[in-house]
Amino acid sequence: MARQEDVEAAIVARREQVNDAIERELPVDEPEELYEASRYLMDAGGKRLRPTMLLLAAESLADVAPQSTDYRSFPTVEGDEIDVMRAAVGIETIQSFTLIHDDIMDDDDLRRGVPAVHREYDLSTAILAGDTLFSKAFEYMLDTGAKAERSVAATKRLAQTCTEICEGQSFDIDFESRAEVTTDEYLDMVELKTAVLYAASASIPAQLMGAEDAVEPLYGYGLDVGRAFQIQDDLLDLTTPSEKLGKQRGSDLVEEKQTIVTLHARQQGVDIEGLVETDSVEAVTESEIDDAVAELEAAGSIEFARETAHDLIASGKDRLEVLPDNEPRQLLAGIADYLVEREY
Amino acid sequence: MARQEDVEAAIVARREQVNDAIERELPVDEPEELYEASRYLMDAGGKRLRPTMLLLAAESLADVAPQSTDYRSFPTVEGDEIDVMRAAVGIETIQSFTLIHDDIMDDDDLRRGVPAVHREYDLSTAILAGDTLFSKAFEYMLDTGAKAERSVAATKRLAQTCTEICEGQSFDIDFESRAEVTTDEYLDMVELKTAVLYAASASIPAQLMGAEDAVEPLYGYGLDVGRAFQIQDDLLDLTTPSEKLGKQRGSDLVEEKQTIVTLHARQQGVDIEGLVETDSVEAVTESEIDDAVAELEAAGSIEFARETAHDLIASGKDRLEVLPDNEPRQLLAGIADYLVEREY
Repeated sequence: MARQEDVEAAIVARREQVNDAIERELPVDEPEELYEASRYLMDAGGKRLRPTMLLLAAESLADVAPQSTDYRSFPTVEGDEIDVMRAAVGIETIQSFTLIHDDIMDDDDLRRGVPAVHREYDLSTAILAGDTLFSKAFEYMLDTGAKAERSVAATKRLAQTCTEICEGQSFDIDFESRAEVTTDEYLDMVELKTAVLYAASASIPAQLMGAEDAVEPLYGYGLDVGRAFQIQDDLLDLTTPSEKLGKQRGSDLVEEKQTIVTLHARQQGVDIEGLVETDSVEAVTESEIDDAVAELEAAGSIEFARETAHDLIASGKDRLEVLPDNEPRQLLAGIADYLVEREY
Repeated sequence: MARQEDVEAAIVARREQVNDAIERELPVDEPEELYEASRYLMDAGGKRLRPTMLLLAAESLADVAPQSTDYRSFPTVEGDEIDVMRAAVGIETIQSFTLIHDDIMDDDDLRRGVPAVHREYDLSTAILAGDTLFSKAFEYMLDTGAKAERSVAATKRLAQTCTEICEGQSFDIDFESRAEVTTDEYLDMVELKTAVLYAASASIPAQLMGAEDAVEPLYGYGLDVGRAFQIQDDLLDLTTPSEKLGKQRGSDLVEEKQTIVTLHARQQGVDIEGLVETDSVEAVTESEIDDAVAELEAAGSIEFARETAHDLIASGKDRLEVLPDNEPRQLLAGIADYLVEREY
């Protein structure tokens, strides 16, 4: 089993390389403002978890020692070479595109500690920056040097993934105005909105490298881990101190955002709308949040969310058995654990 | 030479088939509102010029009589079959995506005689509908049944085209706040914003069918014709009676929109901002517009635009010589003429 510090070191090391690749692949060309805005959120931070997952899956499939091999000329199962880093950059640009457009839709002001793109620039520039990252991602995915039929398979997966992300976001918006959403419906939405991009990240290297047998198991690993990631996000809002979260703890409750915890509690008969009376994040008190969390705990809802996340992580890790037993595989299992053990 | 009524009949006949294909390829699935919004603008109308161009280029390359051959199992140069209609639908969904997002950026209320998508639905749904059409287009383009390396080439072209459309829109927005834009800069912007999608439409069938020699000439034909199309749009605003235009003649002048006509006139020393004193489309009079148009005519700017468009059309038609001399080729030449002869 990979130790947590090894997992974190693996993420940091790959993040640096992904950032270098983003600088090379997405230079600030003319029109300058468009490309600055396209880069803005990526330059502001981010863990690069999805590209890291992609690179680790590639390393495990090629059965090479971690970071022993140039990602730009990476061996496939037949020994020819592909640029697997370009695929990783494609995944990150899709992630960044969805954040930029989601922040507009959710009217969020901040992201990664900086103004959202539509606040730093304006609405038009943000829409256009997202669209640019969207099409760039397809350019990258089609330019890895993989055999044509493999490029087609990987790019189809990317396109279907993007469609599903849109569907998930649409369900999420719809849920905000629907009284009765079940935890199953919620998990289906999370699968589309969040998990499919993890699934694409983990499985696309298998498609590009010709490791057919590993495609579906790795896709399943990504789906499980991605769903667990969102559940953990929902939990962190309730359980992590505000200082650590970087925003008010319990803000989901104040804003009456539906999460797996509140949806479970409602199914248990808890009056969710009445949990927190204060209706602004600025005015709510810690003790009001404490009382609400205690009620959710009493309903078994926090435990339900924790168990669901842990079951998903266990299932995801099982699927990794399709990979050769090597260090990159251990790190992929470690990332799964990391996602539900992280505190922010 | 194709007669104008034959060209119009060819457009209408293919439009019907493209519309049928859109209904099949893009059904109103769950989430319903998302797919309704994605279909909304396509269902409201449109000539389907770009997919028609794509289908005619395919017919000319295959050297078959117009509409004699099923577009869903269309012969390539080697005799295998591809679904060229799916590529045509991909082009139209990209066109529709750009209209939806452009209308948000330009804050336009109406399109094709109906409310813009962000007015009929809301901002979030419009952004998301555009994004959905964007990724669907890639799904279609990757699913024509063409040989993998041809699918890769065509889809790369599509992705580059989308990036360029974003760049063009960014330049267009930037030009609105720049005092000195030259006609050459304007034509470069038009190439990116408008012409590249015509170019992709005309050349993608050659890529999918393996007609390598025809790819670049057809791309050039589309660029020429697409630029001419935009110039004609600029001219129509000045020369077509308001009743025919469906909006106030000269509204570009009232709104101080930069067009090839006004940019040329400025280069001739005309005071463009002073051409029309009234600053609302509702309040402007026909005689005020008449006087402004007369001044633009005196500066030679209308003639300059007409000549530029006609030169482009002549150049575009010349490039069609790469095609077999057949009826679909005549119709492609006829469409080029039609685009600058149309009155609205």
